[in-house]
Amino acid sequence: MEVFTGNGKGKTTSALGIVMRAVGHGLRVCIVYFMKGDYPYGEQAVLAKMPNVSFYRFGFLEFCDPNNVKEEEKEQARRALQTARDAMMSGKYDVVVLDEVNVAAAWKLIGVNDVVSLIKDKPEKVELILTGRGADQRVVDLADLVTEMVKVKHPYDRGILSRAGIDC
Amino acid sequence: MEVFTGNGKGKTTSALGIVMRAVGHGLRVCIVYFMKGDYPYGEQAVLAKMPNVSFYRFGFLEFCDPNNVKEEEKEQARRALQTARDAMMSGKYDVVVLDEVNVAAAWKLIGVNDVVSLIKDKPEKVELILTGRGADQRVVDLADLVTEMVKVKHPYDRGILSRAGIDC
Repeated sequence: MEVFTGNGKGKTTSALGIVMRAVGHGLRVCIVYFMKGDYPYGEQAVLAKMPNVSFYRFGFLEFCDPNNVKEEEKEQARRALQTARDAMMSGKYDVVVLDEVNVAAAWKLIGVNDVVSLIKDKPEKVELILTGRGADQRVVDLADLVTEMVKVKHPYDRGILSRAGIDC
Repeated sequence: MEVFTGNGKGKTTSALGIVMRAVGHGLRVCIVYFMKGDYPYGEQAVLAKMPNVSFYRFGFLEFCDPNNVKEEEKEQARRALQTARDAMMSGKYDVVVLDEVNVAAAWKLIGVNDVVSLIKDKPEKVELILTGRGADQRVVDLADLVTEMVKVKHPYDRGILSRAGIDC
């Protein structure tokens, strides 16, 4: 089980790069987006054309406010976690990506305990990849590999907004 | 211009994820592998099928020894840099990835000055992505966005080797 966390860029894109490699090796991949919903990320058009890749999107286009989490946002995150569990247990996938699951847990859309028990129930031959800043220490402790993306310098600091095709 | 550096996982895979997003937005991408040569990375089978993606591989399957760099390794890196420059100037690409260029410069296969002058010659509308540990400070200073991948925990530390389809 791998974790990509930290405040820098490259958590989701690293997972996507791993997906690309996995597909290149003939592995079967399921990606569950916890909090991005129908946000028009460019990769989804490409993923949709790849063999052996399924993806499921939960959450809403509007960004979630951690100080005012709505019930429907919690419901979306719970459904995402159940979808990830079903994919993991189905025997249909070699790799399951839980995108932004760390944030969903940090913001209490789902319980960290539920994430921990999913990890513990993982069949040995399935690889899990968890992304999102704020990974809980219990998740880090269970992981085989943890990478923190550290922002050294970011154009948002200078007021530059994200660019279609590069950042989203 | 973006840089992914550091000793953690996710530098090349982040670049690949960005490529996937860029292609999803209809952008044209060129990837130049500086030091991986004919290493059988799984992503290349997938990249080869993507529209609007070209990639060029330099270097050798055998890993380069920084204390004993061979002339043919330098020649490969110089050709890679020239290929990246040609791609950048051609008007045919929106994004040019220089994979492992930071390592090639740190190990003196190519001069940092040559990398710096390539960056300075970049047409405004082209995005460059430079990966590899040991990014030179002059490269960092020129970058818009720099992310350091920090290894928090890695299975190699416990003697576990890389797994086909997940790590390579």
